[in-house]
Amino acid sequence: MLELIPLTEIRAARERIAGAAYRTPLVRLNVDDAPAEIYLKLENLQPIGSFKIRGAASVIGLAAPDQLKAGVVTISAGNMAQGAAWAARRLGLECTVIVPDHAPNAKLKAIKRLGATIEKVSFDDWWTMMETRETGHKGLLVHPFADPAVMAGNGTIGLEILEDLPDVDTVIIPFGGGGLSCGIASAIRAKKPDTTIFACEVDTAAPLKASFEKGEPSEVDYMPSFVDGIGGKTVFKEMWPRVSALIDDSLVVPLKSVASAVKLLVDRNRIVAEGAGATPVASALLEQAGTGKIVCVISGGNIDNSKLRHILAGELP
Amino acid sequence: MLELIPLTEIRAARERIAGAAYRTPLVRLNVDDAPAEIYLKLENLQPIGSFKIRGAASVIGLAAPDQLKAGVVTISAGNMAQGAAWAARRLGLECTVIVPDHAPNAKLKAIKRLGATIEKVSFDDWWTMMETRETGHKGLLVHPFADPAVMAGNGTIGLEILEDLPDVDTVIIPFGGGGLSCGIASAIRAKKPDTTIFACEVDTAAPLKASFEKGEPSEVDYMPSFVDGIGGKTVFKEMWPRVSALIDDSLVVPLKSVASAVKLLVDRNRIVAEGAGATPVASALLEQAGTGKIVCVISGGNIDNSKLRHILAGELP
Repeated sequence: MLELIPLTEIRAARERIAGAAYRTPLVRLNVDDAPAEIYLKLENLQPIGSFKIRGAASVIGLAAPDQLKAGVVTISAGNMAQGAAWAARRLGLECTVIVPDHAPNAKLKAIKRLGATIEKVSFDDWWTMMETRETGHKGLLVHPFADPAVMAGNGTIGLEILEDLPDVDTVIIPFGGGGLSCGIASAIRAKKPDTTIFACEVDTAAPLKASFEKGEPSEVDYMPSFVDGIGGKTVFKEMWPRVSALIDDSLVVPLKSVASAVKLLVDRNRIVAEGAGATPVASALLEQAGTGKIVCVISGGNIDNSKLRHILAGELP
Repeated sequence: MLELIPLTEIRAARERIAGAAYRTPLVRLNVDDAPAEIYLKLENLQPIGSFKIRGAASVIGLAAPDQLKAGVVTISAGNMAQGAAWAARRLGLECTVIVPDHAPNAKLKAIKRLGATIEKVSFDDWWTMMETRETGHKGLLVHPFADPAVMAGNGTIGLEILEDLPDVDTVIIPFGGGGLSCGIASAIRAKKPDTTIFACEVDTAAPLKASFEKGEPSEVDYMPSFVDGIGGKTVFKEMWPRVSALIDDSLVVPLKSVASAVKLLVDRNRIVAEGAGATPVASALLEQAGTGKIVCVISGGNIDNSKLRHILAGELP
């Protein structure tokens, strides 16, 4: 398949990121009466609390020293901002993070703590930069998802899953830009093609489901929620050919079920997942993915303390 | 040293427990301005949320089939109750858990959920059973700490730490009965004798510190707190020779600092530690263990939801 990130690229990425990203553990969900054998791939344990460090370290590791002279730049207000800033600081590189002007203060603080410079632009300019890749900066661009080297970095998660659970039946992956899904799917489709691979969205923002239904990237109504790591208005056009070829379907879960899954992961597995990271667990527990051995990719754990407290009290934040 | 659990026993235990306990990850504490390079050994990720599964699986795995005909029995209201019940259920064995009559309902519920039978006795009878090992049951006794096979199981944590961080300078271990400290210290003293090994207690219940000061097992005033996984009135006499030979000192941390450490681990590392499990982090951040590469053993994560919510709000539960 042309849409696959080649296995050789994913293996090369694995060597590049070895010192930066952890090989995260795969553990069983501690729920006895679950409808399937549910496993958790704990990317929330990464140094910046999400899988994004894999893609960032992969891109930066691939660059020639010349390309890094002016540092790195990323277009993100979320986990990739932290991923790029962390990976840059580790190598003593400057990092600029371009954020939309509505970016929440808590996230900006986290980015600053990692020593990156923040540049605010309008949301429209920000989105245009994501498409054109023209940031006005000389630094190496770390695109948050639409870059084969980023996806190769994410693909290393797929290799690890197959090592730890060779007879996996199904993998469920939170769907934001599609870089995580396409990376993992590339590794798994190459090595175990009969695996079912689902993307996962929350019902307040599910453009992939709409796109699958129409057979083309489609726009949806979008309602902001505590699940801020995934979900937008539309599927990035450039990603659609890969996504539609590699992913079996999108599973859509109610916002309430996501909150319950975040709480369950704290109570039973003693880990903190952000909303996006808990969606696959919510889906698996709703029996949307059938039975057998299901791996839920817990993509990240960056949730505000106050939101987490609401969820632990059984409330919707 | 006669007090060491032999390395051969620890290695044999490692093989016995391989299918039951995880090889847990060692991750860096995500705090930039920490006084040392602080690492976390994440035993809270074990299936029952604590290291106790290692000891339980080690003892049960060592027994001849004849010894297991009548199932297993343990004397615990805490994490070993869950450890023994989980390991027994896995092999289809009956499990009886003898608890003191004041045992909290939440813990009893967790034990019942694992299919064990609960037997309540007075606290005095319970303590006597711990010393005499006479439970009135025919099942194989899984002592919560004072058993070489339990300690050999715990010692596997020491082997893993040395594999992941061969140049570790210091290890800090929560001190309850002493089985965790002596197990880990046995492995590390045998392979890297110059490592500093500290036990860790909370200032509301610190019998080991008092015993080190007097040079003999000593009784202290005990104040119950949310740190319920460690801390008693005294050091178990049978354990004193080992403990005093293997452990360099006991570090005592204020209760408030433990609560702050639990909160920090959620905010920065997205994991849930119970009070006992967070004491080593509190100690390391108070610079009680010096600089260099410090491993904090996060012994468990079994904390009540309501207590955790108080801690996340910055309150003492």
